[in-house]
Amino acid sequence: MISRVPQQARPTLAVVGATGAVGSVMLRVLSHRADIWGEIRLVASPRSVGRTLTVCGRDVVVQALTEEVFDGVDVALFDVPEEVAAHWVPLAAARGAVVVDNSSAFRADADVPLVAPEVNPAQVRNRPRGIIANPACATLAMIDALGALHSGWELTELVVSTYQAASAVGQVGIERLHDELEAVAGQRGLGQQASDIRAALSDRLDEESPFVAPLALNVVPWVGRPVDQGWTSEELCVRHEARKILGLPELKVSATCVRVPVVTGHSMAVHATFARPINVKQARQALVEAPSVVVLDEPEEREFPTPADIVGSDPTFVGRMRQALDFPHTIELFICSDNLRKGAALNTVQVAELVARDLAAVR
Amino acid sequence: MISRVPQQARPTLAVVGATGAVGSVMLRVLSHRADIWGEIRLVASPRSVGRTLTVCGRDVVVQALTEEVFDGVDVALFDVPEEVAAHWVPLAAARGAVVVDNSSAFRADADVPLVAPEVNPAQVRNRPRGIIANPACATLAMIDALGALHSGWELTELVVSTYQAASAVGQVGIERLHDELEAVAGQRGLGQQASDIRAALSDRLDEESPFVAPLALNVVPWVGRPVDQGWTSEELCVRHEARKILGLPELKVSATCVRVPVVTGHSMAVHATFARPINVKQARQALVEAPSVVVLDEPEEREFPTPADIVGSDPTFVGRMRQALDFPHTIELFICSDNLRKGAALNTVQVAELVARDLAAVR
Repeated sequence: MISRVPQQARPTLAVVGATGAVGSVMLRVLSHRADIWGEIRLVASPRSVGRTLTVCGRDVVVQALTEEVFDGVDVALFDVPEEVAAHWVPLAAARGAVVVDNSSAFRADADVPLVAPEVNPAQVRNRPRGIIANPACATLAMIDALGALHSGWELTELVVSTYQAASAVGQVGIERLHDELEAVAGQRGLGQQASDIRAALSDRLDEESPFVAPLALNVVPWVGRPVDQGWTSEELCVRHEARKILGLPELKVSATCVRVPVVTGHSMAVHATFARPINVKQARQALVEAPSVVVLDEPEEREFPTPADIVGSDPTFVGRMRQALDFPHTIELFICSDNLRKGAALNTVQVAELVARDLAAVR
Repeated sequence: MISRVPQQARPTLAVVGATGAVGSVMLRVLSHRADIWGEIRLVASPRSVGRTLTVCGRDVVVQALTEEVFDGVDVALFDVPEEVAAHWVPLAAARGAVVVDNSSAFRADADVPLVAPEVNPAQVRNRPRGIIANPACATLAMIDALGALHSGWELTELVVSTYQAASAVGQVGIERLHDELEAVAGQRGLGQQASDIRAALSDRLDEESPFVAPLALNVVPWVGRPVDQGWTSEELCVRHEARKILGLPELKVSATCVRVPVVTGHSMAVHATFARPINVKQARQALVEAPSVVVLDEPEEREFPTPADIVGSDPTFVGRMRQALDFPHTIELFICSDNLRKGAALNTVQVAELVARDLAAVR
């Protein structure tokens, strides 16, 4: 627990959305990392104002979201709905805070960098608006592994299918999945006749769900908003963000994003093609050497990543590495990572730490 | 219900494995289709011998598996474990039955055709060993749709990720998934810390599972046996069978096969590349015209295929059709089909009907 920032210059941090699914993990992540922060302010919606939460060993009373709360703040982490971020992030930046925003509001903005600290850390300094966007959890699930391989072999094509967890839509997603599981558990005839799962859910639950179809005993090929020609915001996001973070504007990407009945932990089947010849042995070595990647790849010993095994951990886990039999310079990978940690809270905190270091260097 | 086979020539049918997950569906499928069969014999393991089952309106007593049971049988449907099929299928064929086998025992045999009736029906006559293999359920889930597109645009490349259901490993898979769901239901903290799902299961269930990792609240990137260089039997099967059924020995295929906590209904994310330019409008028209394919593709109206919606139905359901943005002549598809029906029982019965017609024509 050695701080790299001298005590007298410790920056002030604000966490906005501190009581949500990602916000709670942010506080846990902050508490487990080197404590480089001076004052920490916690901000949340009106119903949480006045609650006392613990972060980095300090008891902090939750404040309301106002412009004044950002006065004197050096770095502000935001995890709030997109429309809230669109309004409040620029106001926080105007008060002098560097904002690390986990919504999609600014990800496509050319003046807002998207940063994955293991891949493009220098981009934290390129922040003309005082805003840095945290990439989407589906992008973050794979980007450390792809970055490590790209630096050796030059990535040219990606075909990705996702297996995305319920908690990516927040606490409401976690609760809905558990509600649905309780509604179907013990009904052993379910899942063998059309629509019986929908009927079982509507008998027990109200219609309101953050998912567009039943998630228990099902998979749902729809994540995000409709955008254009059948593509979802999530699928186009994976393409845009992989290109932006890796600095490859011409990278060929096709993604299909699918929600699965997993609480936390995104998985991706990745078909990755490179400019130079690559084999599994080389790829494994590069991934073993990548500090934020763990290779779990002895399938005959039942060793491969699954969400249930990796949830709650920081790294990107890679397994099922195979040389594509018919596609040159192509490796198949199965990647899992915790969408609340690497996919959200951890990455945001890591970016905030890079910003704090940058601010200290400037002073 | 008009029979094409004259009454006096009605062929004798045997169903081996009549009481299993697929066998029970075979009896249901037989009972709902035109009744072209003369005598029907039902064969199962010793613990089911003597039970009376109903098929095509007849009560039939289950018999034991012996060589003699095949005397006078014209067509025998087998759904038994691979090692049982390897021993008994040739014995049944030696007694004069044409065997349609749903195991993997003969799928790679050059003298055994793999038949998907909508794609390569003429191959039923090419059966030098008297054996026809039913393709694997993962292949069957997508082959009707791919066959319809191939005939117009010539398929060259396939990148496939699967979302495969528990019932593909039989009744034991269905029971295990329900057992696991009961063990985790109501435990709202689960799925947020590493290994807690394994712990919750081991508290309540014995270790014995047909799956290599927890399936409730999880996805498992391992289906089949280990074969070579990290590939599973299921993944290589999809490649081999798509090539064999479509008559494309050079087709480029990469598949990643993943088990998901769904009772019945296989889904696949398919990235399909063709020799000729193809767009979504053309592809949709070809699929709408394919008799065994149903297009569900109005995602803004929440219309796309999910396993919960299509289970218990015969067709192949296709949705999420998108023109690949960066890959020429390439369409993205999400396909669902019932692995016990199209993926097993229905296809087997359809092949048996083609054989019956062929036998009648020869007589």
